Amino acid sequence: MSVSSQQSAPSAKCRGDRPVDQPTIQLAHGGGGELTSQLLEEVILPALGISRRLRDLADAASLDVPAGRLAFTTDSYVVQPLEFPGGDIGKLAICGTVNDLAVCGARPLALSLSLVIQEGLEIARLRRLLESAGRAARQAGVEVVTGDTKVVERTACDGLIVNTAGVGEVHPAAQLDARRVGEGDVLVLSGPLGEHGLAVMGQRSGLGLSLDLLSDCAPLWPLAAALLEELGSQLKFMRDPTRGGLAATLVELSRSCGRGMEIREADLPANRAAQAAAAILGLDLLSVANEGKLVAAVAPDAADRAVAVLRRFDLGRRAAAIGRVGAPSEEAVVELLTRAGGRRLVQMPYGEELPRIC
Amino acid sequence: MSVSSQQSAPSAKCRGDRPVDQPTIQLAHGGGGELTSQLLEEVILPALGISRRLRDLADAASLDVPAGRLAFTTDSYVVQPLEFPGGDIGKLAICGTVNDLAVCGARPLALSLSLVIQEGLEIARLRRLLESAGRAARQAGVEVVTGDTKVVERTACDGLIVNTAGVGEVHPAAQLDARRVGEGDVLVLSGPLGEHGLAVMGQRSGLGLSLDLLSDCAPLWPLAAALLEELGSQLKFMRDPTRGGLAATLVELSRSCGRGMEIREADLPANRAAQAAAAILGLDLLSVANEGKLVAAVAPDAADRAVAVLRRFDLGRRAAAIGRVGAPSEEAVVELLTRAGGRRLVQMPYGEELPRIC
Repeated sequence: MSVSSQQSAPSAKCRGDRPVDQPTIQLAHGGGGELTSQLLEEVILPALGISRRLRDLADAASLDVPAGRLAFTTDSYVVQPLEFPGGDIGKLAICGTVNDLAVCGARPLALSLSLVIQEGLEIARLRRLLESAGRAARQAGVEVVTGDTKVVERTACDGLIVNTAGVGEVHPAAQLDARRVGEGDVLVLSGPLGEHGLAVMGQRSGLGLSLDLLSDCAPLWPLAAALLEELGSQLKFMRDPTRGGLAATLVELSRSCGRGMEIREADLPANRAAQAAAAILGLDLLSVANEGKLVAAVAPDAADRAVAVLRRFDLGRRAAAIGRVGAPSEEAVVELLTRAGGRRLVQMPYGEELPRIC
Repeated sequence: MSVSSQQSAPSAKCRGDRPVDQPTIQLAHGGGGELTSQLLEEVILPALGISRRLRDLADAASLDVPAGRLAFTTDSYVVQPLEFPGGDIGKLAICGTVNDLAVCGARPLALSLSLVIQEGLEIARLRRLLESAGRAARQAGVEVVTGDTKVVERTACDGLIVNTAGVGEVHPAAQLDARRVGEGDVLVLSGPLGEHGLAVMGQRSGLGLSLDLLSDCAPLWPLAAALLEELGSQLKFMRDPTRGGLAATLVELSRSCGRGMEIREADLPANRAAQAAAAILGLDLLSVANEGKLVAAVAPDAADRAVAVLRRFDLGRRAAAIGRVGAPSEEAVVELLTRAGGRRLVQMPYGEELPRIC
C-alpha cells in the first residue's frame, strides 16, 4: 500500500481545500502527500466502511493464516458505464474476485483494492462506488485489508479502473481439477444466463432500451461452499462463466479434460427479458458474461443433489442440470442440442463481442 | 484470473491473425476468447518466463503456505513514460510490490500481475516490458502465479497500466511497528536519494537533459532479510520511501510514533547527478520518489551494525545513519540540520510534485 493511512495532521484539517470541500478528484490527490492522506481518511476508508483497526495499515497488511492451501487471484475492472442496472464497478470488483476464489473452492480471507482514478471524477460518485464495494464485501464476509490510490490525467484513463486481488483458504474437501472430469459427469448451472453482460450493454447501447434486466453480480462463495460440503470429491470442477460466457467456460473445460460434451437448450435456465435483449442486440446468450453464476461438473449420481443444494439459495433457485460430459476425444467438441432436435457446435468466442463489460 | 490459460486449439493456430502476426494490441485481444488465449500463450506467459507448471492456472492460483503471519499488498503502476533510464513499468511493478512486502518483514511468496492495455500498444513493446517484469521477478526470487488481461479503447488508458499484488511470509523475527520507535533510535538510509523520480522526470521533461541518472528500481528483500536476521527486535521500523520521498516517510513515522526527529543533511547519501538534476528541475531531493531504497529505525546500539549489514550489498554500499528520533511531542516535527548549521522543517509534500512517477 503506497498510500499512507495516517491521520491527517490538525494543521491540514484547517485548510479549506480538503477533499470533502472539493467536488472532483485532482491530480494532487494521487501525490502521496497530505491530499492523498485526506482523500484516504475522509473519503475512501469511510466509504468502504473500513474499521479503525484496519486503518493502521503499513505498506502491507498482515494476515494470520492456518497452514494449508491458499488461493490467490486478481482482476482489473474496466467496465463502462461505471454504474449499470443491478450493480456498479465497486460491487463488481468485489464479487468478481470473491467468485474467482469461490470456484477454486476457497473461502475469501482478504481482498486488496487498488484505484486508478481519472482527475475530474466527482468525489460524490467515487464515494458512492466505494460504498457499494464496501456493502458487497460485507455481504461476501470479507474485508478489504490493503489498497492503493493513483490519479491520472483526464485523457489517460476512463473515469475509474479498479483492481482487486484476493487471498482465500482452500476448503479441505476441495478436489477441483478439470482433469478429474470424466465420461457421464453432469454439468450443472446455477441460474439463468447473460444478465450481467446484457444489463451493461443495454445501458450503453444508446438504444434507450428499457430491458427490465439487472446484472446478476453477486458473491458465489455460499453456493460453492454448500456444494463442497455436500458433494465432497463428487464435485470435480467449478467456474464462473464471465467474459466469453458459458461457451468459453465449456470449451475450455472440454479442452482441459480432453472430452466432448453436450448441453441441452431446453434445460438452460434463461429469463425472457434476457432472451429478448440478446435477440435485439444480436448476441448469443451462451457467449454473454455472467457475474453471479457458477457452472459445475459433478459425478453422475451427485447431479440431483447438486441441483437441490443450489436451489436452497436465492441466487440458485433456478439451478438446473444442463448437460453431460462425453467420451475422450481429440476434438473436444461442445454441442448444443437445440429445442428443435438439432445439434449446434458451441464455439469459443473469437474476439470481443461485448467490450468492457467487466 | 479471468483469462484462460488453456492451450490454443490447433484450428486457431492455423489462422493468419494470431497475435504474433499482428503488430499491435486490438480490443478483441481482451475479449476472453481465442485471441485472448493466444495473446496469453504466445506473448504474455513466455515473456514472463512462466513455466509450463504454472500454465495450468484456473481462476485462482494455489499456494501451499506454512501457518503463521502473511503479508498482503497491492499497487497499481501508471508511470509515464513506460520505459525510463534504469527501468520500465514491468520491472517497477515487480520491485514495488516486492519492496512493500520486504519493508513489512515479509519474504515474497507469490505475485499477481494484471494488465490494462490500451488498444494500439505494440506487441513487441508489451513483450519487452513483460520480459523485464519476468527478469525482475526472478531476481527477487518470486513467481507471478496469477494474472488478468484487459484491453481498453485508445482513448481510455495511457498505453499500459499494471497492477501487482503480493503475498509474503512474515519473518519470525519481525517486530516492525512504528509505535515501538523510541527516543534515541537511529534512522538509517540504505543509499542515495531521488534517483527513480529524477530519472523518470528527466526522461519526460522535454528539456533534453542528459542526466546520467538511472532509476534505482530494485528488489529490497535481501537487504530487509539481512537486517531482520542480524538485528532481530532491535529493528523497529522499515519503509521504502517512494511517492512523497523520504520527507513523507519520516513525517508519517513521526506522526505514528508521536515523536519529533532530526536528520543531518551532511550525512544524507546523495549522488552529484541527482543533486544537479533536482536543482535544475526545482525539486527537493527529500520529496522525490525512490524505488530501491529503504529507511529503517533501529535501537541506538544497533545503528553501526545496521549500516554494516546494508553495506554488504551493492544496493546498500552507501548506507548511512542519517538522524535520530527525539522525545515524545504533540507536534511530531521532523527537522533537517543543514550543512550550514541551520534547521529546516521537513514537511509532508502537500500534493503532486511529480505526477505519474510510479
